[in-house]
Amino acid sequence: MNISSSRRRFLQQLGLATGALATSSIAGAQNVIVPPNLGTGKIIVPDPNKIGPSTSFPARAAGAKYMGGFRAPKLDKVKVAFVGVGKRGVSHVNQMAVIDGAEIVGICDVYDDLAKRSADIVEKKTGKRPETFSGSETAYIDMMKKVKPDAVIICPSWEWHSKITCDVMKLGAHAFVEVPMAVSIKELWEIVDTSEKTQKHCMQMENCNYGREELLYLNMVRQGVIGDLLHGEAAYIHDLRSEMDEVERGTGSWRTYHYSKRNGNVYPTHGLGPVAQYMNLARKDDNFGRLVSFSSPAIGRKRHAQAKFPADHKWNKLEFNCGDINNALIKTTMGRTILVQWDETSPRPYSRINLIQGTLGTLTGFPTRVAGLNLGDGNFHRWIQGGELDAIYDKYDHPLWKRVGDLATKMGGHGGMDYLMLFRMIECLRNGEPMDQNVYEGAFWCAVSELTEKSVAQGGMPVVFPDFTRGDWKTTEPLGVIQ
Amino acid sequence: MNISSSRRRFLQQLGLATGALATSSIAGAQNVIVPPNLGTGKIIVPDPNKIGPSTSFPARAAGAKYMGGFRAPKLDKVKVAFVGVGKRGVSHVNQMAVIDGAEIVGICDVYDDLAKRSADIVEKKTGKRPETFSGSETAYIDMMKKVKPDAVIICPSWEWHSKITCDVMKLGAHAFVEVPMAVSIKELWEIVDTSEKTQKHCMQMENCNYGREELLYLNMVRQGVIGDLLHGEAAYIHDLRSEMDEVERGTGSWRTYHYSKRNGNVYPTHGLGPVAQYMNLARKDDNFGRLVSFSSPAIGRKRHAQAKFPADHKWNKLEFNCGDINNALIKTTMGRTILVQWDETSPRPYSRINLIQGTLGTLTGFPTRVAGLNLGDGNFHRWIQGGELDAIYDKYDHPLWKRVGDLATKMGGHGGMDYLMLFRMIECLRNGEPMDQNVYEGAFWCAVSELTEKSVAQGGMPVVFPDFTRGDWKTTEPLGVIQ
Repeated sequence: MNISSSRRRFLQQLGLATGALATSSIAGAQNVIVPPNLGTGKIIVPDPNKIGPSTSFPARAAGAKYMGGFRAPKLDKVKVAFVGVGKRGVSHVNQMAVIDGAEIVGICDVYDDLAKRSADIVEKKTGKRPETFSGSETAYIDMMKKVKPDAVIICPSWEWHSKITCDVMKLGAHAFVEVPMAVSIKELWEIVDTSEKTQKHCMQMENCNYGREELLYLNMVRQGVIGDLLHGEAAYIHDLRSEMDEVERGTGSWRTYHYSKRNGNVYPTHGLGPVAQYMNLARKDDNFGRLVSFSSPAIGRKRHAQAKFPADHKWNKLEFNCGDINNALIKTTMGRTILVQWDETSPRPYSRINLIQGTLGTLTGFPTRVAGLNLGDGNFHRWIQGGELDAIYDKYDHPLWKRVGDLATKMGGHGGMDYLMLFRMIECLRNGEPMDQNVYEGAFWCAVSELTEKSVAQGGMPVVFPDFTRGDWKTTEPLGVIQ
Repeated sequence: MNISSSRRRFLQQLGLATGALATSSIAGAQNVIVPPNLGTGKIIVPDPNKIGPSTSFPARAAGAKYMGGFRAPKLDKVKVAFVGVGKRGVSHVNQMAVIDGAEIVGICDVYDDLAKRSADIVEKKTGKRPETFSGSETAYIDMMKKVKPDAVIICPSWEWHSKITCDVMKLGAHAFVEVPMAVSIKELWEIVDTSEKTQKHCMQMENCNYGREELLYLNMVRQGVIGDLLHGEAAYIHDLRSEMDEVERGTGSWRTYHYSKRNGNVYPTHGLGPVAQYMNLARKDDNFGRLVSFSSPAIGRKRHAQAKFPADHKWNKLEFNCGDINNALIKTTMGRTILVQWDETSPRPYSRINLIQGTLGTLTGFPTRVAGLNLGDGNFHRWIQGGELDAIYDKYDHPLWKRVGDLATKMGGHGGMDYLMLFRMIECLRNGEPMDQNVYEGAFWCAVSELTEKSVAQGGMPVVFPDFTRGDWKTTEPLGVIQ
């Protein structure tokens, strides 16, 4: 994979993905912020009588089949390969190497040293060294043909996610792709169509759905503890400015361009995935309907570049157009609401919010706290938090956490959620079960990026979600409480 | 004031205020929520190149003058009268009775017993009994003519706010009206026009702007502690279902109808007022631009009525159309964003959120906590809260709080904010200073109600704020740090 052609492809894709973009000119001085030009040509006014998702979509290709609830043939042992073993990939390699029933058979990265680093880890942990592939854009295709994996874990830079995901399914493997699954709705459709045509699993690896708090709340919601669900709140508030230190290689070397070329929520799923599953979105009960969004001014990235890099540095030649904080509101088919926030630039404590509100109570995170008629002494005017949560965990910890939580915590990865996700991926493949997150859920969660970009560019106009299931979401059972 | 004609007038006004409203039909069972019909006829698509506020407004009448920064002639002693001394009004009477330089000269309420109760309080505290007026719709007009107050504090049911506010200005007094100032944008224009014509102060009495935390944050923002402001969050989350017990008289007897006839944020200002002043909205720097909003399903009020009242009770004959929780996003002229939430129905702990985010840090409430480069040891990845806030208060407590906070806390009223507000109203009138909140600020903050109703009814369409200042907000100095 040649870096400069990779960069070109990336910039091209962003151009396609985001269409006409808002431009903004932000002066540095306090209180001198020039509003962006919001105009983007033709405004599409959605029918206010139809919340969404859209009822218009391309027909399914001949031979393609709906993948909601899809079960693949059971696998006794799962042969796993990796594409992209930088910061994120190597962490998955570390954990996957010791999961029962998984065997790491191939490792690919554009950088040979990274591929070897991961192979070393596997060899040390298992005694068996997987073959490595590197040095060209098509190295992963060579790997697919050579090692014939059952499943591929895909963690390269975002702009390669959709192409590699589609290719590995076409080449016979189930695809597991890091968040975000893709950078545009066009790419998400390609992934959905490819999964339906090839009858291969495609799961966006949303690890946060496997956090202890998220599983706890899923279990409580399923048991009706907070009644009918009304509203949720999701966020990714995480100052990642320091990634810009990765100038030539590593996340910052490519992610930084997203803050320049796009303006919306470019990383929505860590907070949204769990909330979507509490609400059974895209599974029988309810679905994503429409979205409205505004971005704040874009200030922080430019200032960071000015403060940390020479005036003629490439970061100081970029225009940063992506508002430091993006806010979006989603309306679901059943009329519920979800707030989605994103900020990777501002000096704030980390949060995914993780709030779910029902008619009988509210559960939220950062820090974990709950209140409701069925909780504690029923006094919902105060939060139950800190040590008082022990009784809540005792009563409502998710069965999956009870079963694997101790091991997951020991294995680590964001407090165990990474390990638990990988564990479940292998468990589902071995048992021939549906994945906990189907391809459509990944697509809906991820589509929030382009939809926020469109709404922002049109001055907050509501935009309607595409229906990646082509109307079939009403036939898919909600995710149960996995034992 | 006859009750049944009052009710008729109220229902009429609501009809005018909200136009065609969304209707919804919510089934009780878990996960069986039928989405509301969102259609409302003609959709107005705002120009995405103009954030707002609107540049189209009716011309100012001959003789009317812009009231931003208005100073009235100094008053040595301020003769104060009250209209409406129910739950809220009597609390103000209690405190105003002992404020230096104020003399309560008249008390009016539709209920004679309430008027007398307040007069008793004043007599007991001051030795002087104010005259009382009651028993008819026009009793307050009799009071105005008889006692000729300098200032009138207006706390009747919401649907009377605008009429009485306009009348007292026309009859020669400064008007101080409880939140919300009015229930429609049409009424807000009437208030603005009347203030400009009569050259009388009109202040919406937003007490939360005088909370210790809010004043602290205003002071910190003004000192640049959190840099350039990017985003704010405001809420009124307060379970008020129990007000429905007030069936024949009291707040619930009229406020309950608002949850039936409207669907939006019917009480936006307690959270929004402070955030708006942090950002200098409607004062030179920045202003309210546009707004988008979604409401959740409406479930809680109906269930409460079913659980607490007989099947044939009037509350069980009402349809509750107002979503339990309303979320709105505001885009300001400078491009900043504000989240505004409202929920008076769900079982949740109280919150106004009170978040203000800048390029160097974030301040928020419920509980009070701050983080930023200029705060504590500069580690913005964790909140400074609890006992650690002592150093923040020592350094940044607002001068007004330092001067009057101890007395305010002793006098009470939501932790002292009520007393401090009344104290400042009298102080400004005696000194011939501008009010801390001008008539336009009240109008902008309050306009969020009708704008959310319109956006909700149109499926989340952006709606542009009217410009109550007719373009003159750019000439009005920001509120300083009052010493």
